[in-house]
Amino acid sequence: MTSVDLNADMGESFGPWVMGQDADLLEVVSSANVACGFHAGDWDVMADTMATAQARGVGIGAHPGFADLQGFGRRRMHLPEKSLRHMVQYQLGAALGMARAGGAQVRHLKLHGALSNMTSEDEALAEACYGAALEVAPEIIVMVLAATAQQRVVERLGCLWAGEIFADRAYNADATLVDRRLPGAVLHDPETAAPRIVKMVQAGAILPEDGAPIPAAIDTICLHGDGATALPMARAVRAGLEAAGITVKAFEGRRGAV
Amino acid sequence: MTSVDLNADMGESFGPWVMGQDADLLEVVSSANVACGFHAGDWDVMADTMATAQARGVGIGAHPGFADLQGFGRRRMHLPEKSLRHMVQYQLGAALGMARAGGAQVRHLKLHGALSNMTSEDEALAEACYGAALEVAPEIIVMVLAATAQQRVVERLGCLWAGEIFADRAYNADATLVDRRLPGAVLHDPETAAPRIVKMVQAGAILPEDGAPIPAAIDTICLHGDGATALPMARAVRAGLEAAGITVKAFEGRRGAV
Amino acid sequence: MTSVDLNADMGESFGPWVMGQDADLLEVVSSANVACGFHAGDWDVMADTMATAQARGVGIGAHPGFADLQGFGRRRMHLPEKSLRHMVQYQLGAALGMARAGGAQVRHLKLHGALSNMTSEDEALAEACYGAALEVAPEIIVMVLAATAQQRVVERLGCLWAGEIFADRAYNADATLVDRRLPGAVLHDPETAAPRIVKMVQAGAILPEDGAPIPAAIDTICLHGDGATALPMARAVRAGLEAAGITVKAFEGRRGAV
Amino acid sequence: MTSVDLNADMGESFGPWVMGQDADLLEVVSSANVACGFHAGDWDVMADTMATAQARGVGIGAHPGFADLQGFGRRRMHLPEKSLRHMVQYQLGAALGMARAGGAQVRHLKLHGALSNMTSEDEALAEACYGAALEVAPEIIVMVLAATAQQRVVERLGCLWAGEIFADRAYNADATLVDRRLPGAVLHDPETAAPRIVKMVQAGAILPEDGAPIPAAIDTICLHGDGATALPMARAVRAGLEAAGITVKAFEGRRGAV
Repeated sequence: MTSVDLNADMGESFGPWVMGQDADLLEVVSSANVACGFHAGDWDVMADTMATAQARGVGIGAHPGFADLQGFGRRRMHLPEKSLRHMVQYQLGAALGMARAGGAQVRHLKLHGALSNMTSEDEALAEACYGAALEVAPEIIVMVLAATAQQRVVERLGCLWAGEIFADRAYNADATLVDRRLPGAVLHDPETAAPRIVKMVQAGAILPEDGAPIPAAIDTICLHGDGATALPMARAVRAGLEAAGITVKAFEGRRGAV
Repeated sequence: MTSVDLNADMGESFGPWVMGQDADLLEVVSSANVACGFHAGDWDVMADTMATAQARGVGIGAHPGFADLQGFGRRRMHLPEKSLRHMVQYQLGAALGMARAGGAQVRHLKLHGALSNMTSEDEALAEACYGAALEVAPEIIVMVLAATAQQRVVERLGCLWAGEIFADRAYNADATLVDRRLPGAVLHDPETAAPRIVKMVQAGAILPEDGAPIPAAIDTICLHGDGATALPMARAVRAGLEAAGITVKAFEGRRGAV
Repeated sequence: MTSVDLNADMGESFGPWVMGQDADLLEVVSSANVACGFHAGDWDVMADTMATAQARGVGIGAHPGFADLQGFGRRRMHLPEKSLRHMVQYQLGAALGMARAGGAQVRHLKLHGALSNMTSEDEALAEACYGAALEVAPEIIVMVLAATAQQRVVERLGCLWAGEIFADRAYNADATLVDRRLPGAVLHDPETAAPRIVKMVQAGAILPEDGAPIPAAIDTICLHGDGATALPMARAVRAGLEAAGITVKAFEGRRGAV
Repeated sequence: MTSVDLNADMGESFGPWVMGQDADLLEVVSSANVACGFHAGDWDVMADTMATAQARGVGIGAHPGFADLQGFGRRRMHLPEKSLRHMVQYQLGAALGMARAGGAQVRHLKLHGALSNMTSEDEALAEACYGAALEVAPEIIVMVLAATAQQRVVERLGCLWAGEIFADRAYNADATLVDRRLPGAVLHDPETAAPRIVKMVQAGAILPEDGAPIPAAIDTICLHGDGATALPMARAVRAGLEAAGITVKAFEGRRGAV
């Protein structure tokens, strides 16, 4: 593999409240996951974020979440499947409309927060959300957490997709994330994280702390936008990849099973 | 003129709260203005309303309003122009997405409540909203209150548009509506309202209570969906038009000045 | 026992959307559970509902629920305990303030929808909610679902409380409700429901469809406010109780274990 | 005058979004205006802010605003008077409840943003809001913008009140604020602002840039909590007052006309 994508959540400000370091991060990533107004972002933030991403040649993604501003979409909610489908379609539609208004394009979809967690565990839920999105935008690239229920579903659906791993999280031998409460679960040191990610991209595999390499579709690497170490980490990952001869650019999407 | 459109606001239920008689009204109208979730409607209501309209061959319109559920979008709000533009684009985008998901199409745009009132008085505001919508959907038909600032703006913009009059409101000699507080301002009797509308459509003119006919682009007639007399009124208007040999069907839109 | 309370949820309209038959129901019940704006009700609806209840001598209760208007507070949400406590305190405080402004008083507290279901199963959750409420209003009467975790908690807390059973639901031998999906789970016929409730009040016990009487603190009977049969049912229950010599009046609250 | 109060808006964070430097500012002010969840703040933020204020002996105030999170309560909204009254009562009630739960007390009321601007210009509106609040809490101290419609109303109502001036705004000869767009309208330099405020407190008068002193009820000085200069400014004002022998402490409220 000679190229990989870097993505980060963006447009998470709301009204008078600023979140993240979008402008700086847009210099580093190749794909931006733009909040759609339900868990974060409002119509003005969306428009501005898309315009900046567009100006910098960064791929724009719709990043729908639960309608829970106070909880930032991180609290699990239980909606009937039909309602969940409409919820995703509404947000994706809004994102498509705003992108078009700005002369831009929504290339990918990534689910946010609790909605992402739930669909990474539950194929039926993932299929409901992704199937709904594809009814709105059949050619959208669905970004999935590699080696989870999300990936199994897009392989089956036959849509365009991209597999994602985390730059700053340790993996278990079964490709799940190490529990946040355990030591070493979250990497804070760019010096450690960057070379580790380079190795994974080169190997085309998730490298667990303890266990054999797990071949995986590593199309994009998730960076975080908030916190003091976010930006140094993001820059170190990009620099490390480029130093290793790996180009950072937006994914084109793959189709079918790995 | 041998045909005219009948339109009504729909999809104004929200969560557990039901409003209107959409199913019945969809048997009468040829265009449905579907609330987009800001002043009424939620994603489930939108999907259901669009599906029913689609099944009955009724034209679907996006009906954006202010983000004011409690006030039903009837309270004037003062947003910066840029924010107003994004607000319209977001709602229109959401409607387009949900329609596409249901195999349907959004044919027209109509502004709701206070947003409609304000843009009927203020060309700059109307131009902001319509211009924003056309960036999202250049071929959408903009429904305007005939002989108001709304109409002057679409004539100038060169977009597709349709002129609207009210089935149940009396007009002044200058084409404005008679103040609701005056006697006779609102017509409740289908027996009176229906033949009056037939005359207006045949004349191609608004017929004020007191004053000369005002030539107008009468492409569609606004019916109301709520209240005890709404359905009888709607049926009487349709029956009256058909008895006079006027076909009820969705407008195709016109372009430029009248 | 010579008296019992009748309660119903009220003030569930929101903005332009009307729900329930509050005016009629306020002629029948002795306690009104007033929605606090999170799952239903808005500040105007609250004020009006309290004023009418006050005028008719009906006891006013705060009826907090999850902040989920679209889901009417019926969807389970998982908040940190601390946040749940503040959520209850905020709504109860608002209700107390509005009652005081209207010269009225909030006598009781009843949890709504999913919040009620969850606390009837989970003592820790019930204790969090009730404990939080009592910090705001130490003398409030907590209305609990008889023979559930809710009751066990108020017995332990030492606060004033009142036990509640349903007028229209069949009970299992262990005092839980018969699953709604089973035949006979919900009673629709006032002729059947009224004498059954009279018997329960006279027996001081829940009478399961199948099984021995379960002695219970029957201080209040829950009536429903919505649906075609709600009002006839409510009136039949009241008439049946009065014909049997049982006075319908607001509870005074009991303290400690049964 | 030997003492004066310093106040600032607080508790303006929401969900995951942090705003202001509350912890630091609570070391400087003697009164905190706590947002009530409508334009900013949520129930958790309210509880935390009140607890910290209480711990530091800072007076707690309810700071209600329009229900407009995205606009931070800064956009003018036009509600019927009755609805405006209920809106204030709801928020004040919530604040009272949460304060009581935390063993604290709400001492004062200050209107926020557009609601404050509108009531400083319109006595009827001010009377509606203040009258509504006093129905909920008759002994609350109403904080008013000195020499505006707000002050005229509290003088007439006979309630407890406190007059407020701004630490960082220049005044016109008629006691109105110099337009923000004019040079010198907003003071950014603590070295200039602090001695100027000391002089006003000592004179018991607003000192316009150009014009005679205007005798005024200067009970409290408004400091800002956000922005890079907020904290240095706040500290300089307090230090300047104390150096001049003026004690900084919470107001007790005055009654009737000045």
